[in-house]
Amino acid sequence: MKKLSVIKIGGNVIDNSEKLYQFLLDFTALPGDKILIHGGGKIASELGATLGVEAKMVEGRRITDIETLRVVTMVYAGLINKNMVAQLQAKGCNAIGLSGADGNVIKAVKRPVGEIDYGYVGDLDASSVSTATLSTLLNAGMVPVLCAITHDGDTQLLNTNADTIASAVAVAMSSLYETSLVYCFEKRGVLRDIDDDRSLVNEIKLEQFETLKNEGVVSGGMIPKLHNAFEAIKSGVSAVYIGKADELPQINGNNFGTRLIK
Amino acid sequence: MKKLSVIKIGGNVIDNSEKLYQFLLDFTALPGDKILIHGGGKIASELGATLGVEAKMVEGRRITDIETLRVVTMVYAGLINKNMVAQLQAKGCNAIGLSGADGNVIKAVKRPVGEIDYGYVGDLDASSVSTATLSTLLNAGMVPVLCAITHDGDTQLLNTNADTIASAVAVAMSSLYETSLVYCFEKRGVLRDIDDDRSLVNEIKLEQFETLKNEGVVSGGMIPKLHNAFEAIKSGVSAVYIGKADELPQINGNNFGTRLIK
Repeated sequence: MKKLSVIKIGGNVIDNSEKLYQFLLDFTALPGDKILIHGGGKIASELGATLGVEAKMVEGRRITDIETLRVVTMVYAGLINKNMVAQLQAKGCNAIGLSGADGNVIKAVKRPVGEIDYGYVGDLDASSVSTATLSTLLNAGMVPVLCAITHDGDTQLLNTNADTIASAVAVAMSSLYETSLVYCFEKRGVLRDIDDDRSLVNEIKLEQFETLKNEGVVSGGMIPKLHNAFEAIKSGVSAVYIGKADELPQINGNNFGTRLIK
Repeated sequence: MKKLSVIKIGGNVIDNSEKLYQFLLDFTALPGDKILIHGGGKIASELGATLGVEAKMVEGRRITDIETLRVVTMVYAGLINKNMVAQLQAKGCNAIGLSGADGNVIKAVKRPVGEIDYGYVGDLDASSVSTATLSTLLNAGMVPVLCAITHDGDTQLLNTNADTIASAVAVAMSSLYETSLVYCFEKRGVLRDIDDDRSLVNEIKLEQFETLKNEGVVSGGMIPKLHNAFEAIKSGVSAVYIGKADELPQINGNNFGTRLIK
């Protein structure tokens, strides 16, 4: 089976042009087939504020009304995605930027209205992903760059969590490729001491996850992150890496962040 | 040789949601391989005005400064392109939206600064078009939908005339396909009497062009339009059609607008 890396970067890299430049250089240098998934960053909130579209939050979750959807469609699928693709092209990476509507690559479902109406937000799983479209592009030597906008197949665009897209894409593609899923975030990975970068946990096996939770090594927002990562592994992904964007080149020596395996 | 239709629609259709709906339905129904190229419409100017980005014109030509480029990238490549793709997908057309940077599909050159500095505007010809990327997508059953943003291959996005993109794409693809180029605009085509829709000229051969110019049947803004169309024909395009978007289905009976041939 051919190898595939599915790499997700977040707003902290996108908002910093120097970090982004270096990341795109490192991403381009990665060997093998790869897919990039990017989040939004502060630019959408800033544009929204300028346009008088207030960020709406309910219980810490962002609500996407129709005006917010317009803003994130412009910023994620337009400004960020196209500038990122133009930068990758300049570095010799044949990137192709996609929303979920393009080639029907991710068909999500509008989140049902429960106690909270999240608005135009998409939920998805691995079955939402068109492995046919992604394979066609990869086989032609292209590198898909996905933004966090999907569609419902019935004309509606949807704002979608980029971590969830990355996980769904990795699980879906694991039927065709030996797939690694790489989350780049602010920290070096799972740290035994959150204030000490040298206390990195290099590897966590599924069976160790419970123990590390009980020991408190994994706590807070890290628990759902790792839970989702292990769900991806249970569903076919070979390994999930969680680490710092600027250490990405170390992944070739299997020395990047925290590695989660079965 | 397989047949290919390269179809360009302008702002007058994009700005009118009912017209756009019908056009996308008619476009979906067109048989054979096809590529859609769309212009901008009023939305970019409106967003620019809201953001305090003034439209700058010199001698009737739009100047694209860096702020304007941001706006058109958001609106053309984000808002318009992705909504159009989502609508086409809902109608069963496997559309894939592209800027020129995506898959390096159109690498333009920033217009040299002469008496006027046009800013971030791209010039291109048929050699700017990646027929490889377009063929890959078409062969996989996808329908490329190109917006009027290109790149220079060195990180810079560029605002580009959609008519010129359509013509360059048609000429480039005519090496691989029997290619028709279709311009949809406000009028039914070339009219002998501009106020009488029934005075449509059905067909103009290259050799008749000079005569029609001398007779005044072709005048004003129509002259450069037809000149460019005939240049495309001289460069390999089989036929160029100029007509009204809502009459597009008639192209199957070879009864759409004015048909230009060799």
